[in-house]
Amino acid sequence: MAIDHPEAVAAITAAFDAYERALMANDVATLGAFFWTDPRVLRYGPTENLYGPEAIAGYRAARDVADIARTLENTRILALGPDAGVATTEYTRLKSGRRGRQTQVWAQLPEGWRIVSAHVSLLD
Amino acid sequence: MAIDHPEAVAAITAAFDAYERALMANDVATLGAFFWTDPRVLRYGPTENLYGPEAIAGYRAARDVADIARTLENTRILALGPDAGVATTEYTRLKSGRRGRQTQVWAQLPEGWRIVSAHVSLLD
Repeated sequence: MAIDHPEAVAAITAAFDAYERALMANDVATLGAFFWTDPRVLRYGPTENLYGPEAIAGYRAARDVADIARTLENTRILALGPDAGVATTEYTRLKSGRRGRQTQVWAQLPEGWRIVSAHVSLLD
Repeated sequence: MAIDHPEAVAAITAAFDAYERALMANDVATLGAFFWTDPRVLRYGPTENLYGPEAIAGYRAARDVADIARTLENTRILALGPDAGVATTEYTRLKSGRRGRQTQVWAQLPEGWRIVSAHVSLLD
């Protein structure tokens, strides 16, 4: 398998950046559209385990965004073949100062690049 | 891309199971061998962010394993093409009762299936 296929790295980087902009704007519709619409999609969050598109959308709609603004550090994009990859980053929330980590597994599907699995957590 | 290519699902499942057996035995050498030996490998743990094989090995060698025994729930294997995939699971540590989540991104490389990115966290 080709590691860091340039087109895949570029596509995942663009998707990651667009996701982060949507997150900072709390653009719920755009955020939801980045996730795979399949029962196998999942998102582990700091305080919840979400299985399936409905669970992820429900969380997003109800989310308290008072502490959502953040800066990123050590962002890495690793492409696995032409159609998959993982985006990882550390972050610091601006208001609370809490530090966390975000892993997104991306896949190029017929409908476009989508997050098929996500894991977000705070440092304990 | 083929989602859940049967051979990839079988290979990742076998590797996931072998990793879990090694973890329960605190077989440090075997655990280390499952990780990609490349500077791009990373492991986010509950209390640490580890970049590169040396950082992961150092953590492993020094790890307090008093609360390492655990049961798994909702384990999922998702294959992305023939050579990549993601294994996710929830877990409960037997001694402390603490609950966590583990995400492993696996890739089939010339040397075999390896974890290229891992994220382990406790529920906040």
